[in-house]
Amino acid sequence: MKRLALFPISTKIEPRADHHYLNIGGHALDQLAEDYGTPLYIYDRATLDASLAAYQDALAKHYPDSAGITYAGKAYLCLAVAQWVDQQNIWLDCTGEGELSIAAAAELERENVLVHGVNKSAGDLSSAISGAGTIVVDNLAELERLQARQINSPLPNLWLRLRPGEPVDTHQHIQTGQESSKFGLNPAEILQAVAYCQQHNLPLTGLHFHQGSHFHEPGPLAAALDTALDLILSMRKEYGWVPDVLSPGGGWGVPYTEDDLPHQPIENYVRFIAEHLVEGCKKRDLPLPHLQLEPGRSLVAQAGVAVYRIGATKETADRRWLLLDGGLADNPRPALYDAAYSALPVRDPEREPTTATWLGGPYCESGDTLISNLLLPKLETDEFIAIPVSGAYQLSMGSNYNGARKPAVIWLENEAVHLIQRRETSLDLLQRDNPLPQS
Amino acid sequence: MKRLALFPISTKIEPRADHHYLNIGGHALDQLAEDYGTPLYIYDRATLDASLAAYQDALAKHYPDSAGITYAGKAYLCLAVAQWVDQQNIWLDCTGEGELSIAAAAELERENVLVHGVNKSAGDLSSAISGAGTIVVDNLAELERLQARQINSPLPNLWLRLRPGEPVDTHQHIQTGQESSKFGLNPAEILQAVAYCQQHNLPLTGLHFHQGSHFHEPGPLAAALDTALDLILSMRKEYGWVPDVLSPGGGWGVPYTEDDLPHQPIENYVRFIAEHLVEGCKKRDLPLPHLQLEPGRSLVAQAGVAVYRIGATKETADRRWLLLDGGLADNPRPALYDAAYSALPVRDPEREPTTATWLGGPYCESGDTLISNLLLPKLETDEFIAIPVSGAYQLSMGSNYNGARKPAVIWLENEAVHLIQRRETSLDLLQRDNPLPQS
Repeated sequence: MKRLALFPISTKIEPRADHHYLNIGGHALDQLAEDYGTPLYIYDRATLDASLAAYQDALAKHYPDSAGITYAGKAYLCLAVAQWVDQQNIWLDCTGEGELSIAAAAELERENVLVHGVNKSAGDLSSAISGAGTIVVDNLAELERLQARQINSPLPNLWLRLRPGEPVDTHQHIQTGQESSKFGLNPAEILQAVAYCQQHNLPLTGLHFHQGSHFHEPGPLAAALDTALDLILSMRKEYGWVPDVLSPGGGWGVPYTEDDLPHQPIENYVRFIAEHLVEGCKKRDLPLPHLQLEPGRSLVAQAGVAVYRIGATKETADRRWLLLDGGLADNPRPALYDAAYSALPVRDPEREPTTATWLGGPYCESGDTLISNLLLPKLETDEFIAIPVSGAYQLSMGSNYNGARKPAVIWLENEAVHLIQRRETSLDLLQRDNPLPQS
Repeated sequence: MKRLALFPISTKIEPRADHHYLNIGGHALDQLAEDYGTPLYIYDRATLDASLAAYQDALAKHYPDSAGITYAGKAYLCLAVAQWVDQQNIWLDCTGEGELSIAAAAELERENVLVHGVNKSAGDLSSAISGAGTIVVDNLAELERLQARQINSPLPNLWLRLRPGEPVDTHQHIQTGQESSKFGLNPAEILQAVAYCQQHNLPLTGLHFHQGSHFHEPGPLAAALDTALDLILSMRKEYGWVPDVLSPGGGWGVPYTEDDLPHQPIENYVRFIAEHLVEGCKKRDLPLPHLQLEPGRSLVAQAGVAVYRIGATKETADRRWLLLDGGLADNPRPALYDAAYSALPVRDPEREPTTATWLGGPYCESGDTLISNLLLPKLETDEFIAIPVSGAYQLSMGSNYNGARKPAVIWLENEAVHLIQRRETSLDLLQRDNPLPQS
């Protein structure tokens, strides 16, 4: 069944009594849903490990000298995931104080922590200086602020964020490298920044750009890589300096639905960047930089599955609705990006998909529709349904809309189940509240 | 200055030293921003009171017999706002257990609590039965569940939610009454539900519909009101029963920018509904029902202001960017609905607006753009900027994206300032997290 390929690699369909059930990492999803409640988010470590291995193997093959991988905290970060990053000895990309505090709680090696952000606050900069190995500088004002702080404390390595000017093909909300974007410095400003760093003896070591998130063709990265390499030529010519590290950011896309299958393998993305970089450096007689990749959602999206309970069904004019116990509050991507998803019933997932179905959440808004017009068997109240590719940009963008409490998150590893984030309670919702004074 | 009309009614521009400053409820916004930090959300009680009074005055004039107002918890709810609802002796609309726990903490009268929800969980129903005066029943399966519970505990009043089938003109995410919507029962199902309630002796008292949120012309409500009244005729004919209460839901719109000014006054909305209802009942020889209005965001949106600090400015191809310390995480409406906003600088707001300006937040996504192409004076780093009409559907839909911590919220009342929600801390972000077991 093609749809099954969207699920974690350890997913199976296993018989029990008169039925078959979806099973991940040795655990039947209906049992996990009963034990931990719904909505339930499940992360499968085997899939995370496999995605990372695909990147590392491809780098070993196509860019063997010096390369590394950065996990995008913004996709999904909690204490346990930061610990996994630490175990793997890869880097963690944090945006500001909040995510840095999670890295600190997981006791990450300082050198493995990198800080992004288009507008870092004073608190973000303090946390970055004390807890990170690399700060990616977004603008000249930030560089001046860092310089002012250097007097009192040594700075981490600094990279400059280039805005190359070429868009990639993805949703406009997640394009980041185009000329009008709020992110980074244009080539002329980058050269100014290099001069400033030399003048003030700042620890500049790298050049970064980021073209956007979730794109499916590596081709458009070529123009940005060429812009970066030409700029490095200018740096060498004007300042006798070239960066040790090049970090071509931009998260590789993942297949969310069967229509996205087959998806280009991770190796294509890595090979394209590696080959273009090797060739580009050769042509310009530049030394090969350390290559630090930011694969974004493609590391973690497929490892995650969301499980919901159907609370009611409904037939309206032209649709069969399944009303779930989660939606917009744990997964705002359909509302934000018109994102498409697939789904399978947990019980007897191989039943024939006969019925055009809409999956809505419990919240008071029509934007709370997770999936529109998906063929499913005719499911009934109290069945569980699983949505694959739920590991990235769902919980991290989630809200408490309508008083929703954030879901429980479990981590499957070596046949064991760990509750890595407990479900929020109603008391949690009142945690920050003060009463009005009695009048 | 036209833009000032978007701010709370107690807003003034006051001189101090060599400058003028925005002042709300007797407090200079720069001082509040310094004292409480930014992003800062401010609620002005005088504006909340005035909006409510506009509704109550209009009801007294146009529907004097029996009418009431329900505050939409989903727009913005915290302990203090629930207490304000209680002080005003109006109703609070809660969606599920989470919001009901806030109502309980504020010790609202049970009769003043109403529960909505398209897919109420078992926990939602338990909380509603123990803590609410009215449950709005969305579907027949829910009615059956309530009936099953009646054996053990008396039920609150029940209303049925009608899906009238006619759309109103608003963003498709917040249209709710159209024929394909996930919400409510169609007219035939409503009649089935009435029969079921009679058969099982359920405390059915009202009929509700909801056409959507944030619309600007009351006209399209007419068709839905007629559908409801015709349906009541059928109820009388077939079951000898008519509802005591009619609740024509659908939140009245508010002006977010100068382009929305002048906006139809609240009285127009109330008068339209009242006159149409009185006339419609007369024509059908129906008794006038109690009229319970749900004015939605129009009660609270204008009372709220968001204040940000400009952390950096940037000139890209065709734009001047102001990079703020908040954005998508506290206000996802621009990303979700392409919502437009206005803004004024806190210092010298009457400076000539000379510069087309884009306001971006600190988060790593281009969707984190609060305002595009707004004329402002040429503002600089470290200035404060205030965005009016920020009281509804911002904080309630907010997230912790990029490790953002939820903003502090203050309440201005009689010259006093109360911190009603403290700013989230980095520790709060780790509250639900468990470490992986040591391997």
